[in-house]
Amino acid sequence: MKWSLSLGKIAGIKIQIHWTFILIILWIIFLNLSRGSTVQETTTAVIFILTIFACVVLHELGHSLMAKRYGVAVKSITLLPIGGVASLEEIPEDPKKELLIAIAGPSVNLIIAGILFLILWAGGRLTIPAGAESFQKLAESSFLYRLLSVNLFLLVFNIIPAFPMDGGRVLRALLSLKMDRVTATSIAASIGQILAIGFAFLGLLSNPFLIVIALFVYLGAQFEAQQVRTGSILADHKVRDVLMHHYTPLNEHETLAKAIDILLDGQEREFVVLDDEDKAVGILTRDNIIKALNERGKEVSISEVMNRDFFSPSPADSLKDVFQKMQQQRFTVLPVIEEDTLKGIIDMENILEFIQVQEVLQREVPHLKRII
Amino acid sequence: MKWSLSLGKIAGIKIQIHWTFILIILWIIFLNLSRGSTVQETTTAVIFILTIFACVVLHELGHSLMAKRYGVAVKSITLLPIGGVASLEEIPEDPKKELLIAIAGPSVNLIIAGILFLILWAGGRLTIPAGAESFQKLAESSFLYRLLSVNLFLLVFNIIPAFPMDGGRVLRALLSLKMDRVTATSIAASIGQILAIGFAFLGLLSNPFLIVIALFVYLGAQFEAQQVRTGSILADHKVRDVLMHHYTPLNEHETLAKAIDILLDGQEREFVVLDDEDKAVGILTRDNIIKALNERGKEVSISEVMNRDFFSPSPADSLKDVFQKMQQQRFTVLPVIEEDTLKGIIDMENILEFIQVQEVLQREVPHLKRII
Repeated sequence: MKWSLSLGKIAGIKIQIHWTFILIILWIIFLNLSRGSTVQETTTAVIFILTIFACVVLHELGHSLMAKRYGVAVKSITLLPIGGVASLEEIPEDPKKELLIAIAGPSVNLIIAGILFLILWAGGRLTIPAGAESFQKLAESSFLYRLLSVNLFLLVFNIIPAFPMDGGRVLRALLSLKMDRVTATSIAASIGQILAIGFAFLGLLSNPFLIVIALFVYLGAQFEAQQVRTGSILADHKVRDVLMHHYTPLNEHETLAKAIDILLDGQEREFVVLDDEDKAVGILTRDNIIKALNERGKEVSISEVMNRDFFSPSPADSLKDVFQKMQQQRFTVLPVIEEDTLKGIIDMENILEFIQVQEVLQREVPHLKRII
Repeated sequence: MKWSLSLGKIAGIKIQIHWTFILIILWIIFLNLSRGSTVQETTTAVIFILTIFACVVLHELGHSLMAKRYGVAVKSITLLPIGGVASLEEIPEDPKKELLIAIAGPSVNLIIAGILFLILWAGGRLTIPAGAESFQKLAESSFLYRLLSVNLFLLVFNIIPAFPMDGGRVLRALLSLKMDRVTATSIAASIGQILAIGFAFLGLLSNPFLIVIALFVYLGAQFEAQQVRTGSILADHKVRDVLMHHYTPLNEHETLAKAIDILLDGQEREFVVLDDEDKAVGILTRDNIIKALNERGKEVSISEVMNRDFFSPSPADSLKDVFQKMQQQRFTVLPVIEEDTLKGIIDMENILEFIQVQEVLQREVPHLKRII
């Protein structure tokens, strides 16, 4: 993730904080001082926030170390103001592995809470209060008490059985033991969305912050269901199934003015650039064209402004792999090459169209048949 | 606006309420009753809200009647939970007219506030309090007092000199007396955005609701500046300037499967459908194709699923007028016809590309020159 500050490595995993996280710390210092807190109180508040985020890092390390055990590469853990993100290379589709990876995060908070409980109990400082009012008091009391309650909150929040929470993955993994993954995801996502509507309703009556969480859960569930459906469609196809033969190639020696003429005279927006031997040497998108026009004027040669840094899949490549690589590297168009010959082009929006069409065509297969 | 309930007409202008407005009323009743308010208190609360919205309607009527004086048609005034919207046919570009139309709304709130002031003063019930604490008391006091303060709030809120507030239009109109409209809008929008950043900062320190208002003002200013820049570019051109000659027409007797093949084999997403004499008889968009595939299967004839209800501009038509009509009637593609011959097609996304390119090209004219 860009704009992040690296804090070092744990077990080969980069730990980094996003710059917006610094803003949160500054904001807390500012709020405390402007409310008339002493320097000591303010320092305690900052240390408390940092400790919470250390617990979040440990939570993400839980997921990451379990993932590494199953051979999944983990690039980094990034701290954002809204929580932590572990960049796993890929979440295993094997339900048992996914279950254990998902459950490893909240388990860490359970262990931390257990240790804090033992420390407080051993010190004789533990009198378990009852009821919500006393919970409020608990939260206002000592540093360790508050840390205990934060870890219990992280535990409960993360086991909500809805995407994008860990609980959603646990539920999907459990359902996957009985049915195919697309159906399991779709059921888990529906449960998540029903829960989200419940949260939103509760939020309307009590804390409006719940409405924000509800929206987050609802969209997360929808996104996950869509991702898995899309992935299952792409896995069944090769690059040749989305190959486009109807396109206008640009020549690298032409001017940007020529590219603009073609852009404005038709619906094409993404172009492959060829040299005089009809070999693909670059790609040029609408955004590149507008940017280059702005910076270099329309008489500049296409070869000077095109993107030379691209890859060329072959028709037999897996569509799922190529699509993932296009997403990661933000390519919207690519030439497809076989035995040194340009076979056609593929583009991101066209692949999305293909997915839409396939979704409709596959719906003709009775849904129940796939569940049973 | 759809989903609206008509309340009748005032001076030929339809007054309607959006259905979400009903939700607000139900929510207020619910909140009051669940807080243990009596039926009488709840009724008063609802009547108070309805009275506020009557003031909002009067505010919008202020704009509308002034607009009608200048020959601008006013279709309707719609009450939304966030306020009122008057659907003017077009806001006059003459600065004096725009100024008077913009100022007519807040003036109504000033007049209402003045009348309420006089009533309270005549009844001897007016002791003007000083300071914020007393203003709080004022707001909590009698019905008429509260209505007075609401109208003062509407007055102050609307004269904030930033789009989309009335004050933004007043400022633009005043600037327009000295310079061209695009520059005046751009300056007024910049002032609005600086104000918005100030609001957001204040909101961070005090009331988070201010951050929402800030976002609303910031985006409103940006949108208005973009709209005026776009309008000025479109006004200088004809339909022939955005005519596309490079496209694949569909024949009405072909099947949807053929349309899908063409959709997936290239970057075209919007199609014009021809009959056997090459006469344009329909239009078909990507969304129509996916929807038809879902509902009718891929063997249906294109003539059965295409949209026959479209219009055909001629190359000499004003681009601004055609673009507006396309936006209003949600057309993304249209055939362009001259003397019964299809000259090409135009599409919404292509017009937006054309605007982007023109914006870059026009930037070459020194900006200062246009101000002086």
